[in-house]
Amino acid sequence: MTMKIAEKYNQRARQINSLLCIGLDADLKKIPGRFLSQDNPQFAFNKWIIDQTHTYAAAYKPNLAFYESEGIAGWKSLQLTVEYLQKNYPEIVTIADAKRGDIGNTNFGYVKSIFVDLGFDAVTLHPYLGQESLAPFLERADKASIILCKTSNPGGGELQDLLVEDEDGSREPMWLKVAKQVSQEWNQAENCMLVVGATYPKELAKVRQVVGEMTILVPGIGAQGGDLKSVLKAGLNTNGQGLIINVGRDIIFDENPGERAKWYSKQIRTP
Amino acid sequence: MTMKIAEKYNQRARQINSLLCIGLDADLKKIPGRFLSQDNPQFAFNKWIIDQTHTYAAAYKPNLAFYESEGIAGWKSLQLTVEYLQKNYPEIVTIADAKRGDIGNTNFGYVKSIFVDLGFDAVTLHPYLGQESLAPFLERADKASIILCKTSNPGGGELQDLLVEDEDGSREPMWLKVAKQVSQEWNQAENCMLVVGATYPKELAKVRQVVGEMTILVPGIGAQGGDLKSVLKAGLNTNGQGLIINVGRDIIFDENPGERAKWYSKQIRTP
Repeated sequence: MTMKIAEKYNQRARQINSLLCIGLDADLKKIPGRFLSQDNPQFAFNKWIIDQTHTYAAAYKPNLAFYESEGIAGWKSLQLTVEYLQKNYPEIVTIADAKRGDIGNTNFGYVKSIFVDLGFDAVTLHPYLGQESLAPFLERADKASIILCKTSNPGGGELQDLLVEDEDGSREPMWLKVAKQVSQEWNQAENCMLVVGATYPKELAKVRQVVGEMTILVPGIGAQGGDLKSVLKAGLNTNGQGLIINVGRDIIFDENPGERAKWYSKQIRTP
Repeated sequence: MTMKIAEKYNQRARQINSLLCIGLDADLKKIPGRFLSQDNPQFAFNKWIIDQTHTYAAAYKPNLAFYESEGIAGWKSLQLTVEYLQKNYPEIVTIADAKRGDIGNTNFGYVKSIFVDLGFDAVTLHPYLGQESLAPFLERADKASIILCKTSNPGGGELQDLLVEDEDGSREPMWLKVAKQVSQEWNQAENCMLVVGATYPKELAKVRQVVGEMTILVPGIGAQGGDLKSVLKAGLNTNGQGLIINVGRDIIFDENPGERAKWYSKQIRTP
């Protein structure tokens, strides 16, 4: 039987004693100029980042927007990046931050591109169309579906914080309802995770209360202003794991990404 | 001043006297075998469809999942398809059914790929991260942002039908709240539209009540079982327009797509 992605992640995190995920957001406007003249500049940059930081990474998470913005060249760099990771560091979890979510049959297209052809371990998904729509992802017990719950952006609360009525007439915010639905209903294949922004530690603690040991992807550390200590306090599960803590720009655009990754990695040790 | 996409659509709909949008969902598993041996098979198929159906189309809507599933080759076919439409039929509206939605800065990547490089007139977007996150799309007054509201899939109600509390303590379903937020807040540049599935005519009528003349994209006719007459009755605005009625598989995989498009086009005449 294939190992669950959550277990692959936990093993890797124990191996390196850290919960650090590095966001490979290879924005061409920000990467050092010397890469721009190389073949597949985004891949060349990513390879340079990976070579310096892999010792400290439990996961890598490219956001697809930065690759699609470069069209075919970007898609090629994304392919090369995942191939490079799989060949050299197969123990590190790969997350496609794609934020996809179409109706059921159509999602098979994204399953093919992200899970099968690119070969990512995990993908981020919008919850708005419901469990039924995401079945093509959720049926893949060998992959992880990471559902947006409480996002890190300042305006995320507009819909996510709305109070929704529960079956017993009580009210709870939308993001908590999503956390419950995912952990109690969508997680039949034990392959679901959630996204909760580092900018919302109180909400993270509430999500942890309702989802048990489920792994939670936490973006928003560093450039977005989230605080590491409060995230760890709020979000660790009973194993002292259960968090994938993503740092992107603050590592990859640092003058010394390896040192910066090492520093972050130490802040996010597993107990 | 550039024409609004809604006005471009209205002009085209009046010109052909129809509200038909054709879904260019060039699923390689379903297109006739003779296209598979051609260069860029998805584009070759789309060109064949467009050449037969353009007289009857007010808009074309490729769903990006069917192209991303073919990787670089699919992306190339998508590019060629939009270029072909812009060159030969610039009066027809092009909609990227991409269902995107990331945090603010990251969305600039999708704006570049979908609006700038591919050159689509419009894109479909998830509402879950709120108005603030979608600013890079919403600021583009020359393009249209089509926000998912009440989707056509059977399980769409899981979150969309939840009752949310309004400021005055009254309750309304999530999809109605989204319709109100979009029409009253997100639509500052008068470039927003909504998605409401043909499978929900009662909900479509309610959305029409709250959004005024706003254009609504209606998928779900044909293969998904939506009924045309009830959609028209529920959704037309006071100009007898305001609907983009999408038919995909039922036209493009018909033995005679031209005749099928003509038949649909006649059913969806503007008054």
